[in-house]
Amino acid sequence: MGEAMKNSIPKEFADLLEKPAFASLATLMPDGSPQVTPVWVDRDGDSIRVNTAKGRVKDRNMRRDARVALAIADPANPYRYLQIRGRVVDITEQGADQHIDKLAMKYMGKEKYPFRSATEVRVIYKIAPDAVNTMG
Amino acid sequence: MGEAMKNSIPKEFADLLEKPAFASLATLMPDGSPQVTPVWVDRDGDSIRVNTAKGRVKDRNMRRDARVALAIADPANPYRYLQIRGRVVDITEQGADQHIDKLAMKYMGKEKYPFRSATEVRVIYKIAPDAVNTMG
Repeated sequence: MGEAMKNSIPKEFADLLEKPAFASLATLMPDGSPQVTPVWVDRDGDSIRVNTAKGRVKDRNMRRDARVALAIADPANPYRYLQIRGRVVDITEQGADQHIDKLAMKYMGKEKYPFRSATEVRVIYKIAPDAVNTMG
Repeated sequence: MGEAMKNSIPKEFADLLEKPAFASLATLMPDGSPQVTPVWVDRDGDSIRVNTAKGRVKDRNMRRDARVALAIADPANPYRYLQIRGRVVDITEQGADQHIDKLAMKYMGKEKYPFRSATEVRVIYKIAPDAVNTMG
């Protein structure tokens, strides 16, 4: 039922990546079954970036199988959303501490990510869209 | 990072299935990659019910591979959510028209589902949870 299908984010829906709209990230478990987690996201050109801590389920899943999907709804209108299917094309710890602080500012208006534990290692995953669908 | 893991919905999170909280439903594409769609849900005992129209991507996906996942966040607090991994255990057209009207009341306060097309066939998918994780 998508109204458009492309491999980049349509301009008319770019605001969903600017706003503090949560994304639902689907990854694949070892047995190939899906898993979904609400995540913070931002955009890096035509890629979507997600940030998590090393060792978590979605970290392990994305390292094993790069195939992911995202849904991002407009907080002002849940019937307006982006659906993205794509692949993790880059995984890096470089800049990941600054990146989680940037996301904390976007989503919480805080300079520093407040949930940080002393031992966790933050990681950025860069997702390249293969199919982008829009609704609304 | 889940604070609990079981195969039923914990009482303290049952309100997320009562409220008009959207679920993000992950299904599997023919090639095994994930797909995510925002959906309406309700509860039938320990199962979660989703309703869509025959022939849509998620309909075809759930008929091919019963493995699905859901994330349902509290509209009042996005950091409080349910994560469910499970299987579609029943697919039926019986009662599906009444069910979509019931969901339209829950989510839109409308007696009749307003997006209905004359030709679509509504279908209920009953999802049995295998792993329930809670956060917040």
